[in-house]
Amino acid sequence: VRPSTANREPPLKIYGHFLSPPANQVRLTASALGLDHEYISIDLTRGEHKKDAYLAVTSFGRVPAMDDNGYKLAESGAICRYLACRAGSGLYPDDVKIRGQIDQWMDFAAHHIRTNMSKILFNKIFAPMIGLPVDEKSMADGEKFLTANLPSVDAALAGRGFIVGDALSLADIALIAAMEPFEMIGYDMSKFENIVAWRNRLTGEAFYTHVHERYGAEMAG
Amino acid sequence: VRPSTANREPPLKIYGHFLSPPANQVRLTASALGLDHEYISIDLTRGEHKKDAYLAVTSFGRVPAMDDNGYKLAESGAICRYLACRAGSGLYPDDVKIRGQIDQWMDFAAHHIRTNMSKILFNKIFAPMIGLPVDEKSMADGEKFLTANLPSVDAALAGRGFIVGDALSLADIALIAAMEPFEMIGYDMSKFENIVAWRNRLTGEAFYTHVHERYGAEMAG
Repeated sequence: VRPSTANREPPLKIYGHFLSPPANQVRLTASALGLDHEYISIDLTRGEHKKDAYLAVTSFGRVPAMDDNGYKLAESGAICRYLACRAGSGLYPDDVKIRGQIDQWMDFAAHHIRTNMSKILFNKIFAPMIGLPVDEKSMADGEKFLTANLPSVDAALAGRGFIVGDALSLADIALIAAMEPFEMIGYDMSKFENIVAWRNRLTGEAFYTHVHERYGAEMAG
Repeated sequence: VRPSTANREPPLKIYGHFLSPPANQVRLTASALGLDHEYISIDLTRGEHKKDAYLAVTSFGRVPAMDDNGYKLAESGAICRYLACRAGSGLYPDDVKIRGQIDQWMDFAAHHIRTNMSKILFNKIFAPMIGLPVDEKSMADGEKFLTANLPSVDAALAGRGFIVGDALSLADIALIAAMEPFEMIGYDMSKFENIVAWRNRLTGEAFYTHVHERYGAEMAG
């Protein structure tokens, strides 16, 4: 009798970095799906994402990426959709109208929250950390447009437990991941009461704490 | 006998502006799907996107948006996916692995081509047009990162007619729309030979010319 591992497929591999919001989006999704996987940390500070071994996973040279037994994908939204569909999960239901709403909020999170958050995060945290010049205009634009876009999310969460429908979806996860750096950048979000309540509840759930206690927690280690 | 129009659903409505790459992405998708629809131009120069009538379509106050008999969506990627699924179209096949590749390139087009193109387009064309200050650093960043990301697209198109598989998909359309302003911003893309050949072919097809002859063509009218 062969050992049961002989024909076992290699586990799903997820590549990320603990400070990358889109990589954390993928990790949180895999966690919420309960997917057995191997998490591989790519050291962005040493340029590991531009080295041949990683470029063989994704020629884009960015985190996150995924390797599912030879099937490789980059871009967080694509990976999260693929993982949810592969699992037949309610995080991304088949219904085209529900899916449309989830897609809308995933795009909103990526384009209007994460993009602006990144401008602040890069200039306030990363640039000083790695000795790059700070772009004050970019940082100010990030704060301006982040503040301009948060009311849409806050209004959509009024009286609701989740951003779409009555259950956790890829849209909640995308928004949670995009908003993770709030404390690190010192952004006061207290006036967005619906976001605060929803965020505090979801970041206390097992799918979140299984990945990390909070954004940047791995930094202490 | 009632006239046949009595119970007819109102047509699909698509809201855009001819200079908006994501709005053109939706129009090109509707065209490729052969969808009967009403196109409504929102005058961004007069702030029509921030007025109540349009905010009732999308509270985000941005183009594009869609109204399908009362079902409303914003964000170009979400709208394109919804329209393709609603039509059961091969532009976005059911197969999760093909869909994953399409999603990856849709995200790539939005985050790494369109975002950088927008920085150039805004500062080179729109800001002078409406009397806003030009952000030279943002424009330079846009050019730098656009040039850094185009080789990935060019390499993926080598020896291929389409970015994913053997047929037109939402991914080709997303990339075509993101790249529309090349001529207007005066970007020399001649060294990206695979992109040039693929783009020249697709922009000569009926789904494209049905929307417009070229980006900005409506400006002359």
